[in-house]
Amino acid sequence: MTSKTSATPESKSFPVIYADIEAAHQRLADVAHKTPVLTSRTVNDRTNSQVFFKCENFQRTGSFKFRGAYNALAQLSEEQKQQGILTYSSGNHGQAIALAGKLLGIPTTVVMPQDAPEVKIEATRDYGAEIILYDRATTTREELAQNLANQRQLTIIPPYDHPHIIAGQGTTAKELIEEVGQLNMLLVCCGGGGLLSGCAIAAKTLSPNCRVIGVEPSQADDATRSFYSKVLQTIDNPNTIADGARTPSLGKVTFPLVLHYVNDMVTVSEEAILHTLFYLWERLKIVVEPTGVLAAAALLEGVVTIAHSRIGVIISGGNVDLKQMKQFFYPIDLLHKSWNAP
Amino acid sequence: MTSKTSATPESKSFPVIYADIEAAHQRLADVAHKTPVLTSRTVNDRTNSQVFFKCENFQRTGSFKFRGAYNALAQLSEEQKQQGILTYSSGNHGQAIALAGKLLGIPTTVVMPQDAPEVKIEATRDYGAEIILYDRATTTREELAQNLANQRQLTIIPPYDHPHIIAGQGTTAKELIEEVGQLNMLLVCCGGGGLLSGCAIAAKTLSPNCRVIGVEPSQADDATRSFYSKVLQTIDNPNTIADGARTPSLGKVTFPLVLHYVNDMVTVSEEAILHTLFYLWERLKIVVEPTGVLAAAALLEGVVTIAHSRIGVIISGGNVDLKQMKQFFYPIDLLHKSWNAP
Repeated sequence: MTSKTSATPESKSFPVIYADIEAAHQRLADVAHKTPVLTSRTVNDRTNSQVFFKCENFQRTGSFKFRGAYNALAQLSEEQKQQGILTYSSGNHGQAIALAGKLLGIPTTVVMPQDAPEVKIEATRDYGAEIILYDRATTTREELAQNLANQRQLTIIPPYDHPHIIAGQGTTAKELIEEVGQLNMLLVCCGGGGLLSGCAIAAKTLSPNCRVIGVEPSQADDATRSFYSKVLQTIDNPNTIADGARTPSLGKVTFPLVLHYVNDMVTVSEEAILHTLFYLWERLKIVVEPTGVLAAAALLEGVVTIAHSRIGVIISGGNVDLKQMKQFFYPIDLLHKSWNAP
Repeated sequence: MTSKTSATPESKSFPVIYADIEAAHQRLADVAHKTPVLTSRTVNDRTNSQVFFKCENFQRTGSFKFRGAYNALAQLSEEQKQQGILTYSSGNHGQAIALAGKLLGIPTTVVMPQDAPEVKIEATRDYGAEIILYDRATTTREELAQNLANQRQLTIIPPYDHPHIIAGQGTTAKELIEEVGQLNMLLVCCGGGGLLSGCAIAAKTLSPNCRVIGVEPSQADDATRSFYSKVLQTIDNPNTIADGARTPSLGKVTFPLVLHYVNDMVTVSEEAILHTLFYLWERLKIVVEPTGVLAAAALLEGVVTIAHSRIGVIISGGNVDLKQMKQFFYPIDLLHKSWNAP
């Protein structure tokens, strides 16, 4: 396989190859949900294409993150398993690690900011993790995590920049293509690039002519800038409702994979995210979180245009809490009117 | 088949028998969605049972109503089809009739109150129906509909009290049981009784030991009172958020079927409906309308208690508009705290 978009090394030198995704799929076979693929006549008519929504909002813990977390924890040594693991995440990765640890009998510790939504702290604790809260203003989470890991001899499992995490996330695209067949395009949201790079490897192997497009909020466009400049760009705490895409940059592992396997990166506005959030709710009847609609927004809001094609769209997660939803309503009356426009 | 709850006539004398549901299923085969059956480990743990949610919120037009509407329209004579049909509905039946008419090339007219939600009026019009608005204060919809039908020689297709409608709705339970196997209990919401009686016929045929339970809002408990008194009870414009259950009474066709085939009727509070609405949203990640959660509410709020069983729950529809959802939020902060209680 050769890249059409860059001169990065051959795939065989990467720390994640398709065989790793196959192995991850076997590890996950009896544990993760094979999530449903939804289609909609309205969406097909609107895009003049066949669109397949791979719904990871129906995954265990409510997002694709469970795939990578379980795949990583299952491969730890017996000693590592006994000592336990640690991660830092205010969101879906924390819950995923907590459940994976519970299922595998591995003690888990999750470092979260003290102002994280109570619902998320509770959910992570309910899955059995020890929660350590910190003050964003005075503490860096990576530093705190490293200190704790050293003190307690815990293995750190980061949210995305880890080969086993990436291989696990790649099973999402593998399942989709094995169910629906060849695709012309696959749209995947991008935060730290774990889901995007894993899915790109799977798509390029199983459906070689499929163009893989990463989607970011325009308010958090670091990966898009990195992709075009071929130099890693960062962003500091970007202001977007897509909280899963507030990551500071692609990672050491994900950046070269994205450069090699991804065909293009695009961005969507905050308005497009909200539009799509409620469109999916009202038309597809599914609850999707803001980050989860990024890929769909690029298609439905016309950022990528392609007709007479077979298009895969990854819906990455559905963890919205109602207090958060209430905040989204302020612009709805305005948006609602424009929904029926062509 | 004999009833355990009443001394009503033998099933062979009813205007709907299981063979009608089989025939309806064939008519719908290439037209209606075979909607997904969702399961949830959290729900199974909470109820100590295996629970199967049959998700008609994913049906075309967003509710089970499409099944009955299409089944009824497909059986009209050529002359009736050419003249067109008329119905009265401010909700899901109107949209279902409009789409069924469009697919079958039958002109449709839908009588709606002028204060019906704009979104619903638009959706029904978008499917191609002619909309006739009336003033609730000065006009009875049945009278208006009858006059119009006479003037224009249109066939009236009522929302539930019609054998072809009932047979169509019964395909919901048929599909569910054919997919998941024998059930110990089936929970179905009840407005006019079309879905409930159709599903009860199918369930008693395909899973003879399955107890069929109808669920109403306690604020609109006419069918429950009718069931227990064996005399048709009515209710006038009941105050419930479950708008699909605001029907004045069971019908001439549905009442005897409910008495014969249904094992019990129960009611759920408005608070239980709201609880369940947001529970399904947050845990199952599906958008359900208030009427659509009635059956789930009876189970999740402990109105029916049964353990170590296989339980079917019909989720009847998902047509919520955002303006309506906003109204639901006022009691949410209060409710939210009690969700994590056992």
